[in-house]
Amino acid sequence: MSRLPDFDDVAAAAERIAGHAHRTPVMRSRTADALCGAELFFKCENLQRAGAFKFRGAFNALSRFTPEQRRRGVVAFSSGNHAQAIALASRLLEMPATIVMPHDAPAAKIAATRGYGANVVLYDRFTEDREAVSGRLAHEHGLTLVPPFDHADIIAGQGTATKELLDEVGALDCLFVPMGGGGLVSGAALAVQALSPGCRLYGVEPEAGNDGQQSLRRGEIVGIGTPQTIADGAQTQCVGELTFAIIRRGVHDIVTASDAQLVEAMRFFAERMKLVVEPTGCLGFAAARHAGIDLRGKRVGVVLSGGNVDLSRFGEWLKTPGSS
Amino acid sequence: MSRLPDFDDVAAAAERIAGHAHRTPVMRSRTADALCGAELFFKCENLQRAGAFKFRGAFNALSRFTPEQRRRGVVAFSSGNHAQAIALASRLLEMPATIVMPHDAPAAKIAATRGYGANVVLYDRFTEDREAVSGRLAHEHGLTLVPPFDHADIIAGQGTATKELLDEVGALDCLFVPMGGGGLVSGAALAVQALSPGCRLYGVEPEAGNDGQQSLRRGEIVGIGTPQTIADGAQTQCVGELTFAIIRRGVHDIVTASDAQLVEAMRFFAERMKLVVEPTGCLGFAAARHAGIDLRGKRVGVVLSGGNVDLSRFGEWLKTPGSS
Repeated sequence: MSRLPDFDDVAAAAERIAGHAHRTPVMRSRTADALCGAELFFKCENLQRAGAFKFRGAFNALSRFTPEQRRRGVVAFSSGNHAQAIALASRLLEMPATIVMPHDAPAAKIAATRGYGANVVLYDRFTEDREAVSGRLAHEHGLTLVPPFDHADIIAGQGTATKELLDEVGALDCLFVPMGGGGLVSGAALAVQALSPGCRLYGVEPEAGNDGQQSLRRGEIVGIGTPQTIADGAQTQCVGELTFAIIRRGVHDIVTASDAQLVEAMRFFAERMKLVVEPTGCLGFAAARHAGIDLRGKRVGVVLSGGNVDLSRFGEWLKTPGSS
Repeated sequence: MSRLPDFDDVAAAAERIAGHAHRTPVMRSRTADALCGAELFFKCENLQRAGAFKFRGAFNALSRFTPEQRRRGVVAFSSGNHAQAIALASRLLEMPATIVMPHDAPAAKIAATRGYGANVVLYDRFTEDREAVSGRLAHEHGLTLVPPFDHADIIAGQGTATKELLDEVGALDCLFVPMGGGGLVSGAALAVQALSPGCRLYGVEPEAGNDGQQSLRRGEIVGIGTPQTIADGAQTQCVGELTFAIIRRGVHDIVTASDAQLVEAMRFFAERMKLVVEPTGCLGFAAARHAGIDLRGKRVGVVLSGGNVDLSRFGEWLKTPGSS
C-alpha cells in the first residue's frame, strides 16, 4: 500500500491550489435550519471549477508531476467529474491529457472533456476493461495514471474543501460528506481530525450502493455490483485501500440516502437556495434530514460535492415531486 | 410628484438594511466572459432573502414607519416578489401586513406569503381593481400602503444592490439591469451616478413589454396592455413617475430580450453557473449577449434580480432547449 496522506499534505495541497481552485462559498438557509432544528453550513463545491470538488485533487496531483511526467502527460479513466477535472487541470498546467471514457458516455460529457483540450479515448465497456486500457496507454506512451480517488495527492486535495469549511465557520458537531470511492470523505477526515477533532464525520452513500457501510461494519473492503442509483458520482463498486484505511480511523459512521430523498433534496436546493446540485451532491443533506441522527441544536456541515447534471434529467426531477 | 431620492438615500438605506438583507455574492463565469468577449460581474440577487432584490426596498421602506404606522401595519398589492418581500420584512419588524393578491394566484405563492405571517386578501382581478381594494383597506384600517416601485424608499433600497456591486468590484463600463416598473434600475442609476459615473446603464425589458423603451424615446410615460412574457416580474404596464424621472437622467438606453433568449440564459445559469435564476432575472444577461451592444474588452455588470420560479415550469424550460 502506498503512503497514507496526513493533514500536512492537506495543508500543502491548499497552498498548491490557491489561486487556481475557487475558494467556494459556504451558504446558509433558514428553512434548512428549521427542517433539521440545527445550524447548517453548506460548502458549495457545485460552484467549484469544472462543477465539482474533483478539481481540487486533480490540480494537486498534477502540480506534483516532475518535468518529465509533465512533458509526457497524464492519463485518467472516468466518465464523470474526475475526467473534466483532470482535463481542466492539465490544460492549466500545460500538459497533455488522455481521458479514457466509455463509448456510450453522454455526448455532452465527451464534448466537454474534449472542450478542455483533452484527448478522449473511447472503449467498449462491455468487452474491455478501462483500467487495462488506461494501463496500456500509460505503458506505451509513458503517461502517468492518476486514479479517481485512491491516491495520496487526490485525497489530500479533496481534503482542502473541508479545511476551508472549518477555517471559515469554526468547529462543527457533525459533518456529512457524499461518498463513492471515499476520496472526498477521507480527505475530510484528515481535516476534521486536525481542525475540529470533536466533530462526528458521516460518509453518505446511496442506499443502492452501501459497499462502504458494509466494509466499515465488516472491517474489510466489500465489493458490490455497480449500484443502480441516480447518484452517478457514487456508483463505485468498492472503496480504495488508502481511503478505507483513513475512513476506518476518522469516519464516525457511514449512512445512506434513497434516490427519492435525493430528488427531494435537489428540489429543495433549487427552490429555496437557488442552487443546482447533482444527485450525488445531495447525499449529505438527504442524510442530515432522514438518516435518523439527532442534530437538534447542533452545528452541522454539509458538503455539496458537485452540480454537474444533465439539464433534461434535472428538469424532469424538478417537475415530478417525490419521484426518483 | 413626491420627493425624488438621491444617492444619500441609497447610502442611508444600505445602513438600514445591513444585517437584515444579505450582502449577495458577485459571481464570475469564464464561459460567460468568453461568450461576450468581456469581463462580466453577476450580482446574485436570486440569493437575496425571499429570493429577490425586492426585500431591500421593502425592508428599507418599512424601517422608516413611525411607531403609529408600525402598530397599524402595512398593506401591499402584488402577486409576486414584492408580496413576499413585504411579508418577510414586516415579520422581521414585527408589524402586521396585509397583502392583496389575485384569487387565481398560484397556491404556492399564496401559501408562501401566508407562511411569512401575512394576512392575504384575495380579489377577483376580472371584476375588481387591486389598487382600489388596497386603498380601501388602507383607509378603513389605517394601514400604510407601500407600492411596488414608485416610492422614494423603495427606489433607494433597490439602489443598494448596485452600490454593493460597485463597492465590491469597482467602476464598470456597462451595467445591465432588469426593468419592470423601474424600481431596480432607477436605484441603480443613483448608485452609478455617484460611484461609477462613466458607466453606461441599460434597463432591460421583455420584448413583449417595451413600454419603458417607448417612454424613454417619446419623453413621456407610455402605457401598454399587460405584456405576454415569461418574465412575470416585468409585466408592468407602465413605469412610475418617480422612476421615470430618474431613468430619463441616469439610464443610457433601454433594450429588450425575447422569451427565447431568456430561456437560453436560464439554461446557461443552471448548466454553467449552477444557479436558479427566474426569467425576469435573466433579462440582463440575455441583453448583454443579444442586444447588439459592443462589449468587447469591457467590464460589465449584470444584475440577476431574482430566483423565484415555479419548479415545474422551470423544469420544463430546462428540458426543452430553445423553446420559450
